[in-house]
Amino acid sequence: MDAAVKGSIGVFDSGVGGLTVLRALRGALPAEDFIYLGDTARLPYGTKSRDTVVRYASQCAGVLAARGIKALVIACNTASAVGVDLLAQRLAPLPVIGVLEPGAEAAVRASRSGRIAVIATEGTVQGGAYQRAIAARRPDAVVSARACPLFVALAEEGWTDGPIVEAVAHRYLDGLFAAGPDRPDTLVLGCTHFPVLKGVIARVLGPDVTIVDSALTTAEVTARVLARHGLARGEGIGTVTLLATDGPARFARVGSVFSGEPVFPDDVEVIDL
Amino acid sequence: MDAAVKGSIGVFDSGVGGLTVLRALRGALPAEDFIYLGDTARLPYGTKSRDTVVRYASQCAGVLAARGIKALVIACNTASAVGVDLLAQRLAPLPVIGVLEPGAEAAVRASRSGRIAVIATEGTVQGGAYQRAIAARRPDAVVSARACPLFVALAEEGWTDGPIVEAVAHRYLDGLFAAGPDRPDTLVLGCTHFPVLKGVIARVLGPDVTIVDSALTTAEVTARVLARHGLARGEGIGTVTLLATDGPARFARVGSVFSGEPVFPDDVEVIDL
Repeated sequence: MDAAVKGSIGVFDSGVGGLTVLRALRGALPAEDFIYLGDTARLPYGTKSRDTVVRYASQCAGVLAARGIKALVIACNTASAVGVDLLAQRLAPLPVIGVLEPGAEAAVRASRSGRIAVIATEGTVQGGAYQRAIAARRPDAVVSARACPLFVALAEEGWTDGPIVEAVAHRYLDGLFAAGPDRPDTLVLGCTHFPVLKGVIARVLGPDVTIVDSALTTAEVTARVLARHGLARGEGIGTVTLLATDGPARFARVGSVFSGEPVFPDDVEVIDL
Repeated sequence: MDAAVKGSIGVFDSGVGGLTVLRALRGALPAEDFIYLGDTARLPYGTKSRDTVVRYASQCAGVLAARGIKALVIACNTASAVGVDLLAQRLAPLPVIGVLEPGAEAAVRASRSGRIAVIATEGTVQGGAYQRAIAARRPDAVVSARACPLFVALAEEGWTDGPIVEAVAHRYLDGLFAAGPDRPDTLVLGCTHFPVLKGVIARVLGPDVTIVDSALTTAEVTARVLARHGLARGEGIGTVTLLATDGPARFARVGSVFSGEPVFPDDVEVIDL
């Protein structure tokens, strides 16, 4: 294999939610090897200070860099908001891709009216990073954002369909998408947990709202970046290595929901940070 | 005022859930002053190692002790499970009361059949402290336990009644309370968040199941311990001081659900641990 295309793609998240990004990456780049690190011992990042998140993200990136990655994907909204530029500088010339900018970019492309809704965790909504990233691309955009913590809990419990999820989706989304001229035409799933609820969310919103799945958009951007840098592998079936800082049993159980395929505790290597 | 009865009752929790315990304590001991500390910067405790929880609990107790408390209530199941004996030794002769033992004691007293169900967080269920505390008092008890993380999220969102909570309660409890000779006759609310859902849970279970609210039982035990030590105040209206290690806005918003009365951000003093 050409030296340039050797090496894995490193992916990290504060926990298991980023496995939706890994899943999308594997779909887009089936020939690549991936190393995923979930910093499960220290989650959630969303409630921690900026300095702490930067420190944790740097440690995660360091672990992956030491394993010889050729690109880094930050599959965590909180860490993406504060860490992409810094980690890109530190790891240069390694490409570093966050989940936030691809989602904002896709939302601006998808929206006709410029009215865009973002659902995320409380930390992401209050931090305002999606709002800023969308405004930077389209200053006249009207962005409404809502924290949907129950969606996180439902996804982690593996309750991804059925009447409970649907009722919760109505409660969160009906107000945000009230009929009228201000109704958004685009919804950004601004939390890595939410893609597993996409089916229900789409059903509740109906066909006139475009859903931007930031896991998918991040995977598309990563594929383009790899191709541009001459780092993409053309053929073969890649491997996946899973690392966590705590609790392989829980990682496997909850991770299976987000991976879309079974994860077993023995698949997870526990490391210390 | 008699010197023995001066001083506040210190209460700490990893976050705001322990405010249900504070509420019960104020109901049982209206003349007392309380200082509540929520270690919101470092929650959740439930997923952390025993050593870390002991260290955090000791720091919380230290802050409260420095403010001249006359008794300490550990309003956190995780910290109660690992820290009551240790903190009681360190703070002696100050009485130290956890939430776990009073709940186990009340369950054993309430159950006729010896079949007792416990609902709690995943950490509490897996740690097995309720199971052990019940077995120590009634070795033939059959204890079934289930983690109910959605209840935590619902309570924190303030969704404490209505069809969503009821549907979630059915999903968690119907299996645990399936009809037959093994059906428990007692349910322990083994998480400080759950008392705000007690109405729905009681409706779902029906009148033949006794619900043990560990916030109430802890308050009763605290009142008895104070009386026994000659530390109880007979008259007056006590005060409440609220401390948190992070986020007064969120503390106030979510705390209002658990306190059963409005909490304002200005009421919350942020301290560093």
